[in-house]
Amino acid sequence: MRNVAIIGIGQTPVGEHWNTGLRALAAQAAREAIENAGSPTIDALYIANAFGGSINHQSHIGALVTDFIGLSGIETFAIEAAEASGGAALRTAYLAVASGLVNTALVVGVEKMTDSIAAAGVKARSTGLDADYEAAHGATLPALAALLMRRYIYENQLDISAFEGFSINAHANGSRSQNAMFRNVIKPGRFASAPIVADPVNLFDGAPDADGAAALVLTAAERAGDMVPQPVRITGSAASSDTLALHDRTDPLYLKAAYHSALKAYQQARVQPQDIDLFELHDAFTILSTLTLEATGFAKRGEGWKLAQDGHIALTGSIPISTFGGLKSRGNPAGATGIYQAAEAVLQLQGDAGANQVEGARTAMLQNLGGLGSTAITHILQI
Amino acid sequence: MRNVAIIGIGQTPVGEHWNTGLRALAAQAAREAIENAGSPTIDALYIANAFGGSINHQSHIGALVTDFIGLSGIETFAIEAAEASGGAALRTAYLAVASGLVNTALVVGVEKMTDSIAAAGVKARSTGLDADYEAAHGATLPALAALLMRRYIYENQLDISAFEGFSINAHANGSRSQNAMFRNVIKPGRFASAPIVADPVNLFDGAPDADGAAALVLTAAERAGDMVPQPVRITGSAASSDTLALHDRTDPLYLKAAYHSALKAYQQARVQPQDIDLFELHDAFTILSTLTLEATGFAKRGEGWKLAQDGHIALTGSIPISTFGGLKSRGNPAGATGIYQAAEAVLQLQGDAGANQVEGARTAMLQNLGGLGSTAITHILQI
Repeated sequence: MRNVAIIGIGQTPVGEHWNTGLRALAAQAAREAIENAGSPTIDALYIANAFGGSINHQSHIGALVTDFIGLSGIETFAIEAAEASGGAALRTAYLAVASGLVNTALVVGVEKMTDSIAAAGVKARSTGLDADYEAAHGATLPALAALLMRRYIYENQLDISAFEGFSINAHANGSRSQNAMFRNVIKPGRFASAPIVADPVNLFDGAPDADGAAALVLTAAERAGDMVPQPVRITGSAASSDTLALHDRTDPLYLKAAYHSALKAYQQARVQPQDIDLFELHDAFTILSTLTLEATGFAKRGEGWKLAQDGHIALTGSIPISTFGGLKSRGNPAGATGIYQAAEAVLQLQGDAGANQVEGARTAMLQNLGGLGSTAITHILQI
Repeated sequence: MRNVAIIGIGQTPVGEHWNTGLRALAAQAAREAIENAGSPTIDALYIANAFGGSINHQSHIGALVTDFIGLSGIETFAIEAAEASGGAALRTAYLAVASGLVNTALVVGVEKMTDSIAAAGVKARSTGLDADYEAAHGATLPALAALLMRRYIYENQLDISAFEGFSINAHANGSRSQNAMFRNVIKPGRFASAPIVADPVNLFDGAPDADGAAALVLTAAERAGDMVPQPVRITGSAASSDTLALHDRTDPLYLKAAYHSALKAYQQARVQPQDIDLFELHDAFTILSTLTLEATGFAKRGEGWKLAQDGHIALTGSIPISTFGGLKSRGNPAGATGIYQAAEAVLQLQGDAGANQVEGARTAMLQNLGGLGSTAITHILQI
């Protein structure tokens, strides 16, 4: 295999893009990434999109976007793993470039969730659950996250306010990012009294549906240095899976796929959790942040929330997370989310994160989850 | 890169599987392929599915199937390029194994189109067209194929009966295949009077929506020979794209993506069209068969239909196509179709095609199209 590097990134602001269609949104991020990479020849375009067929009545988005940005003719297809689609598309591009069969690949994550009524977003996300045994009975992603959170609170004898640190941190970081959807600061003490979405998950707990597109350009590491001043190496890339249905897990509070994919990525990159300077984790719900920190070696079981309470997840902490607002404040445009994570980590490693900079960041980890951790895809980036 | 080989195949019959759900259908093909490969350790499962989110309210099918067949934990995600999803997933698995990062990959193509009313299938297939500029105005895949066919008839001063050879050949071959959906023989002369679907496309012209699942096991060629008696080498693999919307093509009767992906595959495999012993092409409509034969070097422009009329596409002809019935008679379970093409070609190369055997077949080509050739993915297999 060849080593692989990221040489360009592009991002649109995340939010409600009522005046921009799916293809235009994708094109905006794609063009920015190509320009950022010094306009190299692009050999393939891999699209990350989770719910286009359901929400936008548009599948076949590889051909759609490739055509729209004037690259018609090149290799293209879409990759899907519910909310982990972005991580999966990055993984695909990594495999393609590593194989030596594709020289330079563009990865575009795009999701346009506000084209339909709000309920369509909930229904679309439910297709990422088990359609027969969960969604058909009315279970939704927030409802299942609420079950997990309730159990965690019970097991560890906590109060809901134990989780507030995650949202406070996300919004503090997001408030300084021009791409973030919700830039309001959440004041300590306000979290626990936010309106309930699915008890105990509340409005300040879960990440919002959103529109957005982000893009990356990948090429062989050996030539990346000649193409851009600061290529970012992908030193770890791993995917793992868990049961699709939550009720099939013997230990629902253990994110098995998150653990295994992180472990494989650590091994490949030859790093340990303490070597990670920042971690863009999948904070779709605070319970997922908690469980992720526990599964990936940053906290003991039952203690992930303490990292948030004690400030360790802040930009100046021992393991900064959600450095541009995370899913919670930047927004969660499903299939695009994993690509935003990567783009943000690249900015951090290149020292271009502005007010959100993690000082001296050399090693970043990203983990993108599908559903409630049924798919977990982890990448480690280094400069 | 490492060379890659197919070491196992599995197929369910194609048809209307009212009593078998999406996951069970996929599992049936997956288990058969694993057993056929000698039950090796599987490191990754790539799913080809086009319309699960729309028709089955189920996305995230990688985690679904991986879980259901007892492989939860391994890498998995889905690949989509409308009806070319199967070819794209095969391409992904090929890239993964070629990279050296994945040793043995399972590829499962699955589509369950008859869970919903028939109109849902038409609507789902329309998501593979341009949602804003084609589907929103009522254009469907058969309607656009009809425009192409009408134009071809006009340009070449033909009668609709010029196309009958494709359907007669497909059903003749399908009539001897236990997996084929429609095993009726079409008698010469009956084609032109079949009920119209979208004038001039008729019931004997277009391939039927269907349920089905097919699977392949891929591993490094260097170890394949130790694992199974007759590994089939993938010597060419290429993807290309064309405009998504038909109206954007300067020359709609030239399948640009089909041409480019075939050319790249020929070059990689170092073969010419005359070296191809059989060609599983994308005969969703007879006009696509015609245009494909022209684009891939088997016929001059305007003359693809002659290969059918003159018997060259028969099992004993110079370029046998649709050897187990093709999309037309075997059936077209969208995302699974490209995997059926590969499984059928493997049977041919291994000499296990029974009554459908192409004698002495050593080199097979597969081409899977998305929409009306907006995506084209070509593989060349050799034994």
